[in-house]
Amino acid sequence: MRATIVAATIFLASAAAAQPGAWRPMPIQGATEPADVIAHSAASDWRPIAPENLLVMDLADGGRVIIELAPAFAPIHVANMRRFARAGWWNNATIYRVQDNYVAQWGNGDAAVAMPEGVVAQPPAEYERPIAGLTARPLGFPDSYAPMVGHVDGWPIAWDPGRHMAWLTHCYASVGVGRDLAPSTGTGGELYAVIGHAPRHLDRNIATVGRVIEGMALLSARPRGTGQLGFYQADHGEVPIPIRAARLAADMPEAERPRFEVMRTDTATFSTFVRGRANRGGTFFQVPAGGVDICNVNVPVRRRTAP
Amino acid sequence: MRATIVAATIFLASAAAAQPGAWRPMPIQGATEPADVIAHSAASDWRPIAPENLLVMDLADGGRVIIELAPAFAPIHVANMRRFARAGWWNNATIYRVQDNYVAQWGNGDAAVAMPEGVVAQPPAEYERPIAGLTARPLGFPDSYAPMVGHVDGWPIAWDPGRHMAWLTHCYASVGVGRDLAPSTGTGGELYAVIGHAPRHLDRNIATVGRVIEGMALLSARPRGTGQLGFYQADHGEVPIPIRAARLAADMPEAERPRFEVMRTDTATFSTFVRGRANRGGTFFQVPAGGVDICNVNVPVRRRTAP
Repeated sequence: MRATIVAATIFLASAAAAQPGAWRPMPIQGATEPADVIAHSAASDWRPIAPENLLVMDLADGGRVIIELAPAFAPIHVANMRRFARAGWWNNATIYRVQDNYVAQWGNGDAAVAMPEGVVAQPPAEYERPIAGLTARPLGFPDSYAPMVGHVDGWPIAWDPGRHMAWLTHCYASVGVGRDLAPSTGTGGELYAVIGHAPRHLDRNIATVGRVIEGMALLSARPRGTGQLGFYQADHGEVPIPIRAARLAADMPEAERPRFEVMRTDTATFSTFVRGRANRGGTFFQVPAGGVDICNVNVPVRRRTAP
Repeated sequence: MRATIVAATIFLASAAAAQPGAWRPMPIQGATEPADVIAHSAASDWRPIAPENLLVMDLADGGRVIIELAPAFAPIHVANMRRFARAGWWNNATIYRVQDNYVAQWGNGDAAVAMPEGVVAQPPAEYERPIAGLTARPLGFPDSYAPMVGHVDGWPIAWDPGRHMAWLTHCYASVGVGRDLAPSTGTGGELYAVIGHAPRHLDRNIATVGRVIEGMALLSARPRGTGQLGFYQADHGEVPIPIRAARLAADMPEAERPRFEVMRTDTATFSTFVRGRANRGGTFFQVPAGGVDICNVNVPVRRRTAP
């Protein structure tokens, strides 16, 4: 740390626009703690996840990773994924890439596996969608990447009011579609989950198709690959992690289906939750932040007891 | 996703201030890729890390985690850490807590280990410091938590021009001091590193003392603890990860010292680097974001060849 004679000298970056100084956090003392908001929520504060939007991936070592799909944002890629699941595409596939502070990726990799019938081999770039039809709740705090961020139906999104387009934000546990260079958008057969700080620079550059809602540690706690981009290298003794099977909950016997619900994001309860995430208190925190970023809200998801 | 008849209805959160709509990203096509900025940097674009600011932690299984200390932000806690290192405090200590998307924590835990001589048992709350004396480079993009963010001497910081105070931001790999409830600030004997999305709500609530600059995966890829807050539970067969020793590089024989350098953040080169991080291009990215958050800049750190 170089001490300077000029105290608090601030120099502007020549290349970057000056940071807007208008916004100041307004911390709230005594905001309800997020855990208490969940504990006191009503049944109507939650929406169930439809079984056709639940992808259940069983690893060969016994672990289970469960993913909620987002057909409203990437309908063709998600339709492909349902076909992949029904054709057993991921049965005996592997997790073959784990890059620290970035992603874990799985699928058949470069294996020559026939494309299941009905899969759209070259989907359009479903990287964003019209905002029309979405009822979004603005987060209420600035974002470093987009003019607006907020939530719709439990999903974290960003949008551009000028272009009238919206997209899912890349947050921890977001699931996206691996792709080659454009014009490839990927099919949905190769997937990744974010295991580090939100790589928001991927937003609008890749099809985001869902998020892991249970079993994240089965992806995030894996050894990192030593190859470029974290690919496992066989000649370094790095062994891809076998997937036993991935199915839609809709295709499982009803008694075996996992059931989840997501906190609705269009309710007063969710606003209280956001306020709590932005103003942590309780016995530990001394200073509430008065702000929260879109990827640190962590919309609650839980096991559903009712059918 | 509920379709609504009212297209693009935006409702404001009652509790949160409206998100400033003034800022819009201004994407730059063809910005120099971050890797190319590093490749073409000059020796003068880097500052070496002094050996008294390098904490070298050797794990019993052979791995090495290296931490740069930040005495300018938490001088008493860092002085404590140097005393802990010299007294062998972390020799035979363990990593005993790994919480997914949050932190890995190590030290002596609840073991009854005598405090080394000279350690300040109850340091003041070094959670922020006066901005006077710091020459900060504003990031140039909005932040969700603080009025201003940017870099000083290679460190990501936030500051409040109104209160004239600055603090290190909690980013991936940030190292902080575990503490009990206030008035405890922790001594520096128990430490954690961030292994997930930036937990910025910890900013100004805890002493941030440095960052891991090498060996992050030795912390982030560990099994998550099943106890509350990710603590390992012996009765669940979870075994804390033993640390063989932690020393300051300054206390190692000169020939054995690891040497690192950090990209200076007060240069035109760094401004080009930030522009590249905010506007990813190359062959993969189709749409540059035109923005980046303080924790996704990832100030370059590398091994130093010159002594």
